[in-house]
Amino acid sequence: MPIVKREEIELQEVKMDGVSKTAKANVIGPAQGWSTDTLRVFRISPGGYTPHHQHDWEHVNYIMKGKGTLTIGGETREVAAGDFALVPPNTMHQFRNSSDRDFEFICIVPERGAY
Amino acid sequence: MPIVKREEIELQEVKMDGVSKTAKANVIGPAQGWSTDTLRVFRISPGGYTPHHQHDWEHVNYIMKGKGTLTIGGETREVAAGDFALVPPNTMHQFRNSSDRDFEFICIVPERGAY
Repeated sequence: MPIVKREEIELQEVKMDGVSKTAKANVIGPAQGWSTDTLRVFRISPGGYTPHHQHDWEHVNYIMKGKGTLTIGGETREVAAGDFALVPPNTMHQFRNSSDRDFEFICIVPERGAY
Repeated sequence: MPIVKREEIELQEVKMDGVSKTAKANVIGPAQGWSTDTLRVFRISPGGYTPHHQHDWEHVNYIMKGKGTLTIGGETREVAAGDFALVPPNTMHQFRNSSDRDFEFICIVPERGAY
């Protein structure tokens, strides 16, 4: 039965230039039978951030826990548990956690954007 | 800024054979810039269910709120907030809410499976 419980997901620290205090896990992707995309879970600890970068694919996001900021194309907005976002392709973007609690979200990318 | 707050999402009752007490909204899809898939939100009220059916595309699910059951290929398991699931293509499946609270989940489908 292809069900994954949150507690079964083991996040690994992301070691990449421009990333701080961020861990991730690939939860559903080609290995699980999703042929086109990969659903990843990210956790940014307080003070952490993802890279301020861009690429030619979009992100589809859902905020699962906590709150943080999302910068897209120079505009920054707060996002919190329950919010959805689409980061367009070829647009600079960054998630940051300036709260004092963990900030967790889903990030879906096409296969060429998964790592 | 392509952010959608949960409270902005207006769910519409699903009127389809085999469906009971279920509402949904398409949140992110081609109209919002996701070229390949559609992310929908479903809410099943207590006692409700989605159709027991199958199709040739997969579902990717995340349980946002409450709990219910997911039947895939004759096996039924409880799923609750925080769980992920992949419903394989060409496999009979159904969500049911036998709890006394609303059961809400994300359901992602490729464009040909969106309605």
